[in-house]
Amino acid sequence: MSLTYKDAGVNIARAEDALSRVRERIARTRRPEVIGEVGQFGGLFASPGADKVLVATTDGVGTKLELARILDLHEVVGADLVHHCVNDALAMGAEPLFFLDYFATSKVDPTVFARVVGAMADSCARLGTALIGGETAEMPGMYASDTYDLAGFLVGVADRGKLLGPQRVRAGDALLGIPSSGLHTNGYSLAREICARRAMHERSASLRDVLLAEREELGGATLGAALLQVHRPYLAEFRALRDVAEIHAIAHITGGGWEGNLPRALPDGTGARIGRDSWEVPAIFSLLARLGDLEESEQFDTWNMGIGLIAAIPEDALDDALTAVPGSVALGNVVPHSSGRRVIFG
Amino acid sequence: MSLTYKDAGVNIARAEDALSRVRERIARTRRPEVIGEVGQFGGLFASPGADKVLVATTDGVGTKLELARILDLHEVVGADLVHHCVNDALAMGAEPLFFLDYFATSKVDPTVFARVVGAMADSCARLGTALIGGETAEMPGMYASDTYDLAGFLVGVADRGKLLGPQRVRAGDALLGIPSSGLHTNGYSLAREICARRAMHERSASLRDVLLAEREELGGATLGAALLQVHRPYLAEFRALRDVAEIHAIAHITGGGWEGNLPRALPDGTGARIGRDSWEVPAIFSLLARLGDLEESEQFDTWNMGIGLIAAIPEDALDDALTAVPGSVALGNVVPHSSGRRVIFG
Repeated sequence: MSLTYKDAGVNIARAEDALSRVRERIARTRRPEVIGEVGQFGGLFASPGADKVLVATTDGVGTKLELARILDLHEVVGADLVHHCVNDALAMGAEPLFFLDYFATSKVDPTVFARVVGAMADSCARLGTALIGGETAEMPGMYASDTYDLAGFLVGVADRGKLLGPQRVRAGDALLGIPSSGLHTNGYSLAREICARRAMHERSASLRDVLLAEREELGGATLGAALLQVHRPYLAEFRALRDVAEIHAIAHITGGGWEGNLPRALPDGTGARIGRDSWEVPAIFSLLARLGDLEESEQFDTWNMGIGLIAAIPEDALDDALTAVPGSVALGNVVPHSSGRRVIFG
Repeated sequence: MSLTYKDAGVNIARAEDALSRVRERIARTRRPEVIGEVGQFGGLFASPGADKVLVATTDGVGTKLELARILDLHEVVGADLVHHCVNDALAMGAEPLFFLDYFATSKVDPTVFARVVGAMADSCARLGTALIGGETAEMPGMYASDTYDLAGFLVGVADRGKLLGPQRVRAGDALLGIPSSGLHTNGYSLAREICARRAMHERSASLRDVLLAEREELGGATLGAALLQVHRPYLAEFRALRDVAEIHAIAHITGGGWEGNLPRALPDGTGARIGRDSWEVPAIFSLLARLGDLEESEQFDTWNMGIGLIAAIPEDALDDALTAVPGSVALGNVVPHSSGRRVIFG
């Protein structure tokens, strides 16, 4: 009997069927700069002028994927992927232009694919980002049944003279924090490990049981619901802030937590002095920390602890900034600093 | 005992160690347009002018990864990823500008990571493409031990008036084929299935044995060596061709083979008439087809069959093109065509 590519587990028609289910939602992400149709060898986008800078970012969503699978909330990780990339771009001072995705799995489930990529498209549309291409990889045997991985790629644009970064930051700058919606897309391996140990501890409980139990500490919500909040996009807040203050630098608090990200926005010889009482750590973090018996430094080195974005701005712009960005808090200041950990909590 | 992120299987220092091993090779990909350092929230690249078009592509290397792992040839897939993206961009008429990669695994092996990403950087440097960012995702439990997945993202640039595509192609255009170096990065699930069945057939043989046996049909080479040839990059050939002919469209023959790709370069109402004798199908394809007892149409719908790139050019430029691109062949012509399969072999 002769062998076919289908026999080997790859079905190109299935991948095309999956894509056809989201074509209209992808079409709604179109911007005037997009040229031609999606589905060519490359996506086409009219270049900004030579006075601009392209800002390119790539991200995944980590093992939050695993929770989305267990709780059947695939839309969340699709949105997460776009928001993570958009936030990284605006941390350099850029507005998003276009996005491409990579979706890899052993066997495409057209329903799951459409939920994930449809959510990506909807997030792109909401944030004015054109979804101009993607790769759907069907790799038999590479992924466990029902699992998939995602990578996103985004290009944004900034005025050359308005790039953000440590070079603009001075000791004395105020640090403005904007709340997160939860863990965003980082530290999920630790959160999952805590939940899995909890399940073992409770004997008959499965990981799913632990995720679905209502928690008094969360006001009756479940760990699963708290862990599957969508990564908050900060584009509107970035724009509002830019309108009232000269932003110097922005840190997007992702993998590596505070110490892993905030110093990326600070010039050599400086650190960040943060008032530990300037915001309240959300219950999801305290609950996970208690369940896992975590040291506080470990929490801050892994999770955003309730602050997803931190902007360094001139001290005299702080009041306007706090008004312009509802919910934002004054975290502290940039200070001279010579050695050791650069984020100092006091 | 308190839990840490490391206990949960994620070690950020390990990922940073891995990256530090390839930092110099990444630095050698730098182009004058690159601004600042790699490792910020986004990679920065000076925008081309507003008369240009950005061409964005994303690709993976599929289950060739599995063969690279078995035969310990990780450099191959790193180079493949870059070349696949570069070829997709030039198929739209674009020169490559910058590249970003996504490397996902359960636990980063710094040696393997450095071999893969180092090879990516070397390919980028050779092809004048700046490697300006990447994401290294450590996802415990997501990938089988020793396996990883890769995605690449590339942005290239084309003159607005020189974008290639079906809109330029006319019935009568000549189709120029440029040889591939083997399967490139597509159809590996089928090739692996054939090898695996062969191993079962030969009883005591493992997949590795089948891959490492010398084959008379391959002039004494092994299937493994033939299957792990690097995906050929066509940038030099594209430039040489562009110098002597007005290229109308280019098809990069990847997933979906001839019927899945060549029509993407053809306008509605046309097809491609291909002289089946105009080139010799390389031995690796004939051998796999024989071992798998494959129909010829299945082969052409899955593999490139020895032709990795096909350009549609004016018929009167054919002789110059054949001279300018050593090894290229005249495959046939674009013809009027109304229905059914659009690649017609005769």
